[in-house]
Formats: sequence, C-alpha cells, structure tokens
Amino acid sequence: MAEQNRILLLAHGSSDQRWCDTFEKLARPTLSAIPQSAVAYMELSEPSLEQEVARAARDGVTHVTVLPLFLAAGRHLRRDVPAMLADYRSRYNIEIELAPPIGEDAALGEAIRSVVEKQLTGTTTLDA
Amino acid sequence: MAEQNRILLLAHGSSDQRWCDTFEKLARPTLSAIPQSAVAYMELSEPSLEQEVARAARDGVTHVTVLPLFLAAGRHLRRDVPAMLADYRSRYNIEIELAPPIGEDAALGEAIRSVVEKQLTGTTTLDA
Repeated sequence: MAEQNRILLLAHGSSDQRWCDTFEKLARPTLSAIPQSAVAYMELSEPSLEQEVARAARDGVTHVTVLPLFLAAGRHLRRDVPAMLADYRSRYNIEIELAPPIGEDAALGEAIRSVVEKQLTGTTTLDA
Repeated sequence: MAEQNRILLLAHGSSDQRWCDTFEKLARPTLSAIPQSAVAYMELSEPSLEQEVARAARDGVTHVTVLPLFLAAGRHLRRDVPAMLADYRSRYNIEIELAPPIGEDAALGEAIRSVVEKQLTGTTTLDA
C-alpha cells in the first residue's frame, strides 16, 4: 500500500552545485529517519517541486506536506510557492499543505545557539 | 574591560519587518546565553553589519566573528560579504573572521529532522 502522506523538504535551488550539496547534507538526517520524505527545489535545480509532486501523485500518495528549508518567509514563500502549489493541486489532484518555514520552529533557534557555543569553544581551545 | 571577542549573527535583511522579526526570534536563545553576541543585517535592515562592526571597534573589541544565519553559501557569502569585511577590517582596524553559514553545522540537519518529526506527530494526533 502506498503511504498516505509525503514530506517534501523544499529548498530554493541554485545553479551552483555546492548550494545543493549543502541542502542534501542538511536533509540527510530527515531522509534517513523518515522514508516518506524527499528533497525538492523551487527553481534552478532538480528534482523540482513539480517533479516531486507528480511523483507523489503517481505513487498514489493522497497528501503532501511541503516543509520549506528557509529560515524566514519572504516573497518566495508568501507569494510564489503558494501560487505554484495552487496550480499543482488542481493539475495533479492531490492535497498539498504548505508548512511554515523551518526557521519559525524553536528547534532552529536552539541549534543556532549550539553552533555559536561551538564557535566560542573553538576559540577558547586555541588558547589552551 | 571590554570583551575581546564579539559574535555577530548575520542575517540577510528585508524591507518586510516580518522577515526581521523571524531572525530576531531565531537569535533570541543565542543572545540570552551569550552576552557578547548581536544581530546584524547585510542589507535593507538595521543594525547593518557595518554599524555593528563600528560599534565593536568603539567598544574596544579586538576580534569579531561573523556567523551567517544562512543555510547555505551562495553569491552573498562567497563574494559580497567577504568584500564588505575586507573593507571594514581596514577602515575599523579590527580582526573579523567569517564563519561558515549555520547550515554547514550538523546541528541544523538534526533540528530539521526534529521539525519534520513534529509535523508528522501533528498529523498523527489528528487521527486520535
């Protein structure tokens, strides 16, 4: 039986492969832990968001959650992505929910604090 | 005595105040835990990176670490920010180190996984 829900981790995309490499690495813990998750790109890189929505529809998935790997919502998340999703919903006949960007979750603020603390420890270690 | 090291959390900036609100919230755990940290914006918002570097110099700080609140390094972090920092180093006579963007730290990938798991739990809870 096909899974009913799929999670698409939405990254912006770039013509620079190093950009995508970073997002693929960021997604790795999620992809390992959650089999029904995948990465998709808004523009410039593949797989595109549309390709992944189409694949979900082909796989018989009924509900897609798009989780933006963005720290904050700008023009893309307030305007462009909702317009893309409205189009895909009708063309692929699938439910698609747009989650808030990851940066709105408290886990991100805590992760940033831990990065800064590591930076400071690194500096301190140089003195030892 | 002035602290010797200051951490500037560098966000992109936007004409949309909601964008800045999200970054200020993201920075809050760091600002609470680490008194010598502050937020600075690359463009469009204040305090600007230059204003914060100037303030550090006025405060007698000798070393600034700029930690980009960016998930990946694109054109801004590969080209624009290094050029800005080269300018500020000579004009303010202060050491400035540019750290990798937060998205290159493993803590961010783990935070993303935890956000996705919360999303899924939310979905499951609806069935209860």
